Amino acid sequence: MCVDAARSGVSVREAYILPSAAEKYSSELVPLQAAAQKVFYISDAVAAKLSDTKNTQGVFAVCDIPSLPSDASAVDPRGIYIAAERLQDPANLGALCRTAEALGIDGLITGGCCDVFSPKALRASMGAAFRLPLIDSADLVGLLLSLSAREMRTLASVPDASAAKITDLRADGGVVCVIGNEGNGVSEQVLSACGERVTIPMAGRAESLNASAAAAILMWELVRNGVRD
Amino acid sequence: MCVDAARSGVSVREAYILPSAAEKYSSELVPLQAAAQKVFYISDAVAAKLSDTKNTQGVFAVCDIPSLPSDASAVDPRGIYIAAERLQDPANLGALCRTAEALGIDGLITGGCCDVFSPKALRASMGAAFRLPLIDSADLVGLLLSLSAREMRTLASVPDASAAKITDLRADGGVVCVIGNEGNGVSEQVLSACGERVTIPMAGRAESLNASAAAAILMWELVRNGVRD
Repeated sequence: MCVDAARSGVSVREAYILPSAAEKYSSELVPLQAAAQKVFYISDAVAAKLSDTKNTQGVFAVCDIPSLPSDASAVDPRGIYIAAERLQDPANLGALCRTAEALGIDGLITGGCCDVFSPKALRASMGAAFRLPLIDSADLVGLLLSLSAREMRTLASVPDASAAKITDLRADGGVVCVIGNEGNGVSEQVLSACGERVTIPMAGRAESLNASAAAAILMWELVRNGVRD
Repeated sequence: MCVDAARSGVSVREAYILPSAAEKYSSELVPLQAAAQKVFYISDAVAAKLSDTKNTQGVFAVCDIPSLPSDASAVDPRGIYIAAERLQDPANLGALCRTAEALGIDGLITGGCCDVFSPKALRASMGAAFRLPLIDSADLVGLLLSLSAREMRTLASVPDASAAKITDLRADGGVVCVIGNEGNGVSEQVLSACGERVTIPMAGRAESLNASAAAAILMWELVRNGVRD
């Protein structure tokens, strides 16, 4: 992940590396060592202190957190975007980044979510958070209304069988789909700001589909028509 | 999770509970306390020793591991099944259980996978591993051939654009789809045993779709036709 950050042009101030890791990953670490302003070799005790997992790879970096755009001009009105409202689990947010990048989604809009650059989110994203276009808005309602004014379709995903089925959606772009908080879903304010409500039609225990699996299926349906033929 | 186990009829030998947890979750813990042959109240120090996470909920149980069927007679030949070959990450296997249950998949067949009842897999499955029908085979090739002989379609999922598109699949049941190991995919032997190869057509960085997101999309496509109309 440190190497992904360096490769993606994130400013790396310092790298801290276990000598055993420097040996084991010698070729992989070249971009990190080249990008870092300072490189320190550290002891096992320091690595254990720095790590927030039980088993550390022994590679750490202090980076400048990328500053994210927040307004509608950062969104391509012909693109396919996913928006996450108040996602609280960094593993879900990171997985969402990773799947969005894999499926070729044009960008992720976050509103009131946990920190996409937290260690847990970054680990789950496998570096996608450094590569996927991200927009972070303190006013998701306002942003959605702006995108709507720019002729984008704005969808709120809801666990409600009376909503339009995501499988019936016909869209090749110019669309943003909002997924909501793990426990509470999309807020009333954001629901009101969206032009349409969509749902994943399901036969099983729909309530137990987790946020990142639901997001994977929603994103898949958004891109499905474009790749099917 | 301990409560899910007790509710699902898993035999609970002993439960170990922090007094603070017993108070906090008093109503939730009733089924566990009723099912356990013995209940012990433990200190913070013991809880820290028992836990393999940094933050423990303070509830532990010693259970008999359910014995799983291994042969084709446990599979409904009209059903929709997912098979996992040599999945190594317990979080992926657990997430796969959870998504399979949510989507109404009829069961999960494992062949050479990590332990579905390991703590990490169980946590990721959110109890689905106790509820979803599981079949564990030491001979996945033989099992697939038996299922094929019973008129089931056997699909191997591969990251290969020349394979049949999963989106073109027309199946309402009587199908099993194999997903492979995180790094190496479906083995040659299992590929040979399967009647068809299928792939997820993708525009993005397909190589970065993780196993549980890929499995979610594959399972979704297997059930999609049944729920769309």
